[in-house]
This record gives sequence, C-alpha cells and structure tokens, in this order.
Amino acid sequence: MEKILGTDIVTQIGLIVRDIETTAKDYAEFLGQPVPPINPTGTYDKALTQYYGKPTEARAKLAFFHVNQNLDIELIEPDEKDSIWREFLEKRGEGVQHIAFNIRGMKETTAKLVDAGFPLTQKAEYVGGRYAYFNTFDKLKVDIELLENDSDL
Amino acid sequence: MEKILGTDIVTQIGLIVRDIETTAKDYAEFLGQPVPPINPTGTYDKALTQYYGKPTEARAKLAFFHVNQNLDIELIEPDEKDSIWREFLEKRGEGVQHIAFNIRGMKETTAKLVDAGFPLTQKAEYVGGRYAYFNTFDKLKVDIELLENDSDL
Repeated sequence: MEKILGTDIVTQIGLIVRDIETTAKDYAEFLGQPVPPINPTGTYDKALTQYYGKPTEARAKLAFFHVNQNLDIELIEPDEKDSIWREFLEKRGEGVQHIAFNIRGMKETTAKLVDAGFPLTQKAEYVGGRYAYFNTFDKLKVDIELLENDSDL
Repeated sequence: MEKILGTDIVTQIGLIVRDIETTAKDYAEFLGQPVPPINPTGTYDKALTQYYGKPTEARAKLAFFHVNQNLDIELIEPDEKDSIWREFLEKRGEGVQHIAFNIRGMKETTAKLVDAGFPLTQKAEYVGGRYAYFNTFDKLKVDIELLENDSDL
C-alpha cells in the first residue's frame, strides 16, 4: 500500500503547555530523566516561520524527552504571537497537539498532503532541517508534523 | 534517577474517536497500512471494569496501528456508559487521551502513583493482562495508562 509520507514511523508526540519550566520538571520527575535543556525556536530571520502562508514572528520554547527508540515527547510553550501552537492553546487548552514523522522531500510531500486535502498550517526552518504542520485533525483526530533533517538526506 | 513506573518507554498513543470504522479506515489510508481488526473490550464478567472504584458495564471498540518499534496508535470508540473514555469525549471531544507504558507489578505501581498524587480513574482485565488509567493531566497534560501483560511477567 502506498505510504503518502514514505513512512509510517511516528517520531514525536508534541504537547502544548503553558509553563514549560514547570511541565519539563514534572515530566523529568515522572519519567526519572534529567530535566532537559529548554530552547527557543529561531528568530524570524533564521526560521522564516510561515503561519497560513504569511510570515509570523511567533516563537516557542521547546524541550524534548526521549521515550522510545526514535521517539521523543516534545513540550512546546508558545509565545503570544499568531502560530499553530497558540491557536491550539486557545482552542483546546494544554494537551497533545501533534504526532510527527521524519520524512525526505519536504516540498514533494507537502504537495501530496495538500492535494489529499490536508492544509499546510505552519512551516519553518531550524538548524539542520525544516518542519511543516498540517491540519489532519478531521480525519486523524490529531495534527501531524513533518520533519526533514539535512543529516538524513 | 528513580523511575516511578520502572520504565520511561512509551508504548501507545491512545485517541478517543466517535466513529472507529471511519477513523480506522482514514488512518490505514494515511499510514499505508491495512485496516486493522476492530474489537470490543470484554463484557463486565470478564473485564471487571472499575471506573472511579465502581463497577461499570462500559465497553469500547479498539483498533491498533503499529507505528514504531513497540509503539502503537490505539483508536478507542467508547459506548454511552460511564467510562474514562466517554468522560474524555464529553469534556474535550475527539483527540489524544493517553500515552501508555508497559509495566510489571500493577498493584505496587498503582500504589506508588496514587501516593504521588495521581488518582486511579479506571482499571480492567483483558485477555492476557490488565490496564489502569491515572489522572496525570494536571502535571503531564495527558493521562497515562499502565499495561501489564502476563507474557512479560
């Protein structure tokens, strides 16, 4: 059967949180792991973040916990500016916002998903790669994120 | 660091859905996997389901997609009776309800979690094992499920 993403391996569970310092500490304690570094996403000049096709200066603070082979829990604390993260927080409150897949060929895969009826909601660059979020909620009951890392290419 | 569960490996992402036949088909198409079997949870005489410490005849239909080593996406369609699944659907609508961990020593681990301030919300037996849900939402922004399989003991 054709895999629209070229993969069916889930590599991230992404949660939107209001206070990443507190939640990262609570996860660390619960999982029995060290508190991970908490880092902001890049500024617009580096990230070139697009939200519904328009530039946004929105940023988020991120923290990662490794919870299985090739699987991370990602905590995301959005700032106040317009983003898919802020939108989720305002609509649904804290909770799981996305599952992610590592893919190759962001441009081609994005075109396939859009053709299949899944709108691109946000995309940006990060050091060593790029991400894109798609609204898959109606069908999958969670949004998806694609990650393309240059080291995988 | 002490792992309260004895593990930090996430083995399930559990989603509550309204129409499991449709959503299972949509996931199968999206992932490029066959449509999995959809099976009901056991009747009360076998499952002995307890919701907040009281027997409930609530059941759910379940379907599983394998999406990484030791990681499944679980779709759950609750029936109308009182359950943690129905509670989630009514409070938050469709979406990711839990992440699960496979543990050994359900009784001891349950006691540890309750002591740590995470209430046991629902538990039951299934063929070959047992599960328990805990309200971890305040701290982890998602509930957790423990799974104990007799084959792992």
